[in-house]
Amino acid sequence: MIGRIVIDDVRPRTPTRAYPAKAVVGETVTISADVFKDGHDILAARVLWRPTGKPQWNEAPLAVENAGLDRWAGTIVPTTLGRHELVVEAWTDRYATWRHKAEAKLGAGQDIATELEEGALLLEARAADDEQLAEVAKILRDDKLTPHERLAPALTPDVERLLQGAPADQGEIAASEAVPLWVDRERALFSAWYEFFPRSEGGLQGARNRLPAIADMGFDVVYFPPIHPIGRQYRKGPNNTLTATEDDPGSPWAIGGPEGGHTAIHPELGTFTDFEDLVLKANELGLEIALDYALQCSPDHPWVTEHPEWFHHRPDGTIAYAENPPKKYQDIYPVNFWPAGDADRKALWTACKDILDFWIAKGVRIFRVDNPHTKPMAFWEWIIPAVQATNPDVLFLAEAFTRPKVMAKLAEVGFTQSYTYFTWRTKRDEIVEYVEEVALGEKADYMRPNFWPNTPDILAGPLRNGPVSAFKLRAVLAATLAPSYGVYSGYELLENEPMSDTNEEYFHSEKYEVRRRNWDDPRSIAGCLTQLNAIRHRHPALQRLRNVRFHASTNDNVLAYSKVSDDGADVVLVIVNLDPWSAAESTLNLDLPALGLPWDAPFEAYDELSHQSFTWQGPEPYVRLDPHHDVAHVLHLRPLS
Amino acid sequence: MIGRIVIDDVRPRTPTRAYPAKAVVGETVTISADVFKDGHDILAARVLWRPTGKPQWNEAPLAVENAGLDRWAGTIVPTTLGRHELVVEAWTDRYATWRHKAEAKLGAGQDIATELEEGALLLEARAADDEQLAEVAKILRDDKLTPHERLAPALTPDVERLLQGAPADQGEIAASEAVPLWVDRERALFSAWYEFFPRSEGGLQGARNRLPAIADMGFDVVYFPPIHPIGRQYRKGPNNTLTATEDDPGSPWAIGGPEGGHTAIHPELGTFTDFEDLVLKANELGLEIALDYALQCSPDHPWVTEHPEWFHHRPDGTIAYAENPPKKYQDIYPVNFWPAGDADRKALWTACKDILDFWIAKGVRIFRVDNPHTKPMAFWEWIIPAVQATNPDVLFLAEAFTRPKVMAKLAEVGFTQSYTYFTWRTKRDEIVEYVEEVALGEKADYMRPNFWPNTPDILAGPLRNGPVSAFKLRAVLAATLAPSYGVYSGYELLENEPMSDTNEEYFHSEKYEVRRRNWDDPRSIAGCLTQLNAIRHRHPALQRLRNVRFHASTNDNVLAYSKVSDDGADVVLVIVNLDPWSAAESTLNLDLPALGLPWDAPFEAYDELSHQSFTWQGPEPYVRLDPHHDVAHVLHLRPLS
Repeated sequence: MIGRIVIDDVRPRTPTRAYPAKAVVGETVTISADVFKDGHDILAARVLWRPTGKPQWNEAPLAVENAGLDRWAGTIVPTTLGRHELVVEAWTDRYATWRHKAEAKLGAGQDIATELEEGALLLEARAADDEQLAEVAKILRDDKLTPHERLAPALTPDVERLLQGAPADQGEIAASEAVPLWVDRERALFSAWYEFFPRSEGGLQGARNRLPAIADMGFDVVYFPPIHPIGRQYRKGPNNTLTATEDDPGSPWAIGGPEGGHTAIHPELGTFTDFEDLVLKANELGLEIALDYALQCSPDHPWVTEHPEWFHHRPDGTIAYAENPPKKYQDIYPVNFWPAGDADRKALWTACKDILDFWIAKGVRIFRVDNPHTKPMAFWEWIIPAVQATNPDVLFLAEAFTRPKVMAKLAEVGFTQSYTYFTWRTKRDEIVEYVEEVALGEKADYMRPNFWPNTPDILAGPLRNGPVSAFKLRAVLAATLAPSYGVYSGYELLENEPMSDTNEEYFHSEKYEVRRRNWDDPRSIAGCLTQLNAIRHRHPALQRLRNVRFHASTNDNVLAYSKVSDDGADVVLVIVNLDPWSAAESTLNLDLPALGLPWDAPFEAYDELSHQSFTWQGPEPYVRLDPHHDVAHVLHLRPLS
Repeated sequence: MIGRIVIDDVRPRTPTRAYPAKAVVGETVTISADVFKDGHDILAARVLWRPTGKPQWNEAPLAVENAGLDRWAGTIVPTTLGRHELVVEAWTDRYATWRHKAEAKLGAGQDIATELEEGALLLEARAADDEQLAEVAKILRDDKLTPHERLAPALTPDVERLLQGAPADQGEIAASEAVPLWVDRERALFSAWYEFFPRSEGGLQGARNRLPAIADMGFDVVYFPPIHPIGRQYRKGPNNTLTATEDDPGSPWAIGGPEGGHTAIHPELGTFTDFEDLVLKANELGLEIALDYALQCSPDHPWVTEHPEWFHHRPDGTIAYAENPPKKYQDIYPVNFWPAGDADRKALWTACKDILDFWIAKGVRIFRVDNPHTKPMAFWEWIIPAVQATNPDVLFLAEAFTRPKVMAKLAEVGFTQSYTYFTWRTKRDEIVEYVEEVALGEKADYMRPNFWPNTPDILAGPLRNGPVSAFKLRAVLAATLAPSYGVYSGYELLENEPMSDTNEEYFHSEKYEVRRRNWDDPRSIAGCLTQLNAIRHRHPALQRLRNVRFHASTNDNVLAYSKVSDDGADVVLVIVNLDPWSAAESTLNLDLPALGLPWDAPFEAYDELSHQSFTWQGPEPYVRLDPHHDVAHVLHLRPLS
């Protein structure tokens, strides 16, 4: 049963409202709701919020954001990790309602005797709080004064503050249901990832030696494909062939061998001491190590013999390998997450959590989760909160390359971040539509996109046999459209050879082969990535998701978008030529007020990439981007004078 | 906690999911949901539904509607009034999953020994249901036959039916929460309303005499402004002036006088016997009488003296008239729906329900509710279900001319229908956008629009000083865009004089004056309304809301839209020239497949208004509408041959 005041659609929230929406510490989070009441009374509203279980509420005012749509909004800035709860409250602002009535009638020359007496009663009821109110009430009743003289002292900011500040004294307070909000650390929202295979650097020690260069490029997270022993049976050879020689290293995702499973390190990579040294070195450099959490087993995984009940069986009792008929994946035994017995399920799920706890104890706080959509949603719904209950700083990136509803549901039940379809969105309208969906729509309340131009599995769009400009422009897009992005190593070396015209894997994929690289290759665009990461760190505007805004351009190959920081002080405008082969000219149509810039005065546009400074005026600057020189402008906009 | 299969977003539903969505008896209602599971298993789903409290479930299958979006849909056709509940269930279709695997592997020339044995086990587990299954299982195991011969008998429709028909035998069944659905009688969705003031026809007897003409025009509902005694104090004179003479009848919405309040009949209109005769006559003619439910009182209403506690008081103890400062409405005392004491509130709300029960006992089943947005939402949330609990055939039309969120919330908490902004949507893009919002969006799950070109308060758009063509075209739009529409009498006589350039009331509004009309005026467009109502009754396509589809036209003044009946057999295409002054030519771009019409063969377009028949071929017919002859085509489309 609703009360007199209706409070609906409190946001942020997830679609089913059964799971928390998401924010990070230090983020300015907009809380909004529909708030209305019958009649003409003036309302007031606020949001109360606190870490769940704490006795003390914080509060922030809500104000009308869109009167026609009865939408109210305010902001909060969470300061602690973990689950929070929000309650929106609204009440009739008796003082404002009375004041509006009295002023409107006085202004129309009408008698306000009734309003003067009503005001006196209103103030007297609160006179215990402040002596001043009793005095003002007396003046309201003083019929030796003019109506205007009687009213004026009751309209001062002091009186307003005294009467509006205490909702508990305003009669009925309507309250929404408590809405849950999960607060992560900032890296859940703002992070630059770099993926590489330790074995291609000679193992964990070689990987450790590579860290300073990655830190110098300005990345925040270093993600490794699985570092566990690799199965021998049905091991894959180069280019995903079915026969491997003794020298072939196999896919790291075929996890498990005689040396152990998900809690072991491949002996060829090194030891636990090497791993600990690596983590220490990373932390020294301000980097975090993210591990792959890939819940599948090679036929040689210890679980296969220790826990055959955790796998699918054929009628003849043998364990079934992975199939999507007619495709066969003989090197992988998928785990049966829903074995017949509840006890078996509990034991399996606990063992899966033990893997996470094991690596958490080794200092890992970020997991990239392989193919989460092939495991039950109920499993993620259980395991992520179970881990975060004791370790609220642990983050999970979903490799949710699957159908959109499934991708969104994984985010809803708890994944911190998700890979997205960015990799395949290459034309202007596709990019605008997709970014508006994931950054500006309701999904942004709970799903955080992580934009990857490439992965070890995906060489797509203009990168396929693409020129250096393609690699630069896709990096600019990923790094500036989303606050989280990542690249798979080799990107800076412009590795661009696809498996075939129809297969979007890499030729000689590193998944099946060790790949030695010449990091000193003069063609390397490491400098470009370094620039982008530095710009991201320098500009708070680029550290948020929901603040992207697209601007019109006259050329379909020219994409223009801006971001403004929470406090409005930092304004970045990005202009990208989406055609890696040809120069593009365009006139833009900037929404200047949204950028805090004047219509009629010049402003500065400083290009953080080229270090050129332009003086622009008006909403329609002209740009020309020749990919042989510049693929993009990343402009810091500032009013002049 | 979710299970292995996810079922989300079951529709129809309301935004908060706390109230029932709406349907009518005999309506083909689409039930849809997101349904998915990890992995490659093939799913099956159904909806179970029943009147709430009944033991027996009905069921209907759901099928994949959009695989990429994991959206499933099916249809149900409710047959009884009242509250229903729906549950969507989904399960793994083991037979289909097995069959897909076996066929895919056989087709790729792979060994299917495992699948043959799995199939045999699957069939044997169900052999108790049917002997045939045991036989087929034996063949699956008969290694003297080829794999194809062994498999084939298990793939017959008979076996498929036996194995797919019983979800209870398929292991875990996932189920959504129960979703409520309120089922009204068909008039809640499909109705043509005609409003007139009985006093302008000489009272209830005169009104009764007018009914045959209204029935002849094909209307379904006759709605009267309040028929109760009218206050004397502060009675309004002609054109809303503040001084009335003895001869001025006053506004019927200033309810209550010495003769009684909301359960009395104005003596000048007639007696309860007259009212009973009127209802009888209406029923004879297939019409229903709708009364106005306007919860406000003139200063002379009996409640003012009997229940002063139900009104707002000034500090001096006097009752406050209605104000929206600086506007004053001295002839109206608004009811205070939230008096201080719970007992007073209960007594007041009960008295309000007593009014409805009183008129329901007199045979009234439809109420048009005046200004519902000025009464608490909680009041409607209580009173509508309270009435419908015992009288599920009672319908409420909300005069919710207010902000969109409030309009939608009134529908959500229980109103059967709502007035809309149609009256002010006159340009093509405005109409398309608005109709898509109310007919095709999520609102259509619970809010039923009733389109009125005019009301006694509103003379808008091209009707203001408008020509006959304006009246015809707005009637065509209202009658064919929405299954419920209405006109206020005088419309057929082209009454078009506004109060002023800025005031959208009528000059000499009938709200304050008796208006005698010459129904035999030769300019009357009663014939046009008669035609429209006959077409609506003849074409099931026009009796539904969610089936409207707009088609492109090359002329901004030409609006084209189609409706197709639930069974696909009835197809109506409406083409309207929105400019009442000038002829408009246009080429259309019809979505022929959506209309069940061929791309490459001629089809018939029969104009139900002009009785002309056209033979068209292809998606781009040319039309010309000269408002001096025809404002619109209402075309019945049929394939030829």
